[in-house]
Amino acid sequence: MKKSYTTNLYVALTHYPVVNKNGDVIASAVTNLDLHDISRVAKTYGVRLFFVVTPLEDQQTLVEKLVSHWVTGFGSSYNPKRREAMELVRIKNSLDEVIDDIRQNGGKTPKTVVTSAKRGSRNISFGKFREMLSSGNPYVLIFGTGWGLAQNFVVEADYVLDPVTGSTDYNHLSVRSAAAIILDRLFGTYT
Amino acid sequence: MKKSYTTNLYVALTHYPVVNKNGDVIASAVTNLDLHDISRVAKTYGVRLFFVVTPLEDQQTLVEKLVSHWVTGFGSSYNPKRREAMELVRIKNSLDEVIDDIRQNGGKTPKTVVTSAKRGSRNISFGKFREMLSSGNPYVLIFGTGWGLAQNFVVEADYVLDPVTGSTDYNHLSVRSAAAIILDRLFGTYT
Repeated sequence: MKKSYTTNLYVALTHYPVVNKNGDVIASAVTNLDLHDISRVAKTYGVRLFFVVTPLEDQQTLVEKLVSHWVTGFGSSYNPKRREAMELVRIKNSLDEVIDDIRQNGGKTPKTVVTSAKRGSRNISFGKFREMLSSGNPYVLIFGTGWGLAQNFVVEADYVLDPVTGSTDYNHLSVRSAAAIILDRLFGTYT
Repeated sequence: MKKSYTTNLYVALTHYPVVNKNGDVIASAVTNLDLHDISRVAKTYGVRLFFVVTPLEDQQTLVEKLVSHWVTGFGSSYNPKRREAMELVRIKNSLDEVIDDIRQNGGKTPKTVVTSAKRGSRNISFGKFREMLSSGNPYVLIFGTGWGLAQNFVVEADYVLDPVTGSTDYNHLSVRSAAAIILDRLFGTYT
């Protein structure tokens, strides 16, 4: 029997500050399927907790309703596998609250690693990040919604992970797909 | 400049015959985000075409509407990157029609490779499939919706790909996440 979590990694899905199509900083709306897909991926790869970050109260209420449906409501008995995944979800106002939560529960301040579709001078490779994770220190891997994390937010992070590129010039994955691929690159084992 | 497609792989998302939660064989409804996410992943990794298979006329109409919105309608100018991905979508009644289409356009009958969350005696590894793909012969990689492809359909396929397993016992990814991870395992390059 494998453990229910196996890593020192936390995942955060951020809805503010992100940019829209025109580059304006906005708070994006929460997408239900992001929570379903990313919580299931997080559970598969042994992520500790999945933080959903939004400062908007109505959005927090929506997330709470969705999560409680699957964790304690009808969905929990209808589909216990969804419950196991949704149990990882925590709702927070900001990344600062995420870091406080991890510190309070684990004792150590986590380092932050942001994801981006663009390559920059501060990038770390997947191999480097795997090596960092094997140290046992906690890390938060941060995904942006909308058209990605606002630049000032990226600048403040401890590390920026290499973008996911495929075998073409096309570089426009959904955050759900990017999260799946990145966690597999970090923790997947296969032949 | 990399090519717009770089592989001999076709992807098919099947809505019939699949099973529901109780194991009954059904035709599942099409999920819009499956088309968005999987077309973008397919485009990223140089897949040739993305077939959406459903025998239900109302579902075919829905898919046609969605695709034409992004390929020729308002969406095509609003977001050209979605257009590039959606241009890969072809709607078919059955897997037989998928195979006919590939044969008519490429001259060779493709081999079929099904995905499954369960491991069986006929499984091939990701490495083995990569090796097969490098031969230049065409393959169709088939994903099921609902609770997965019906067993008689799996039995008739040429090959069954190893399931995606993570670092825990949890083995319940969405088809969107599984497609993203599998295409990255087949074609992704990173350090």
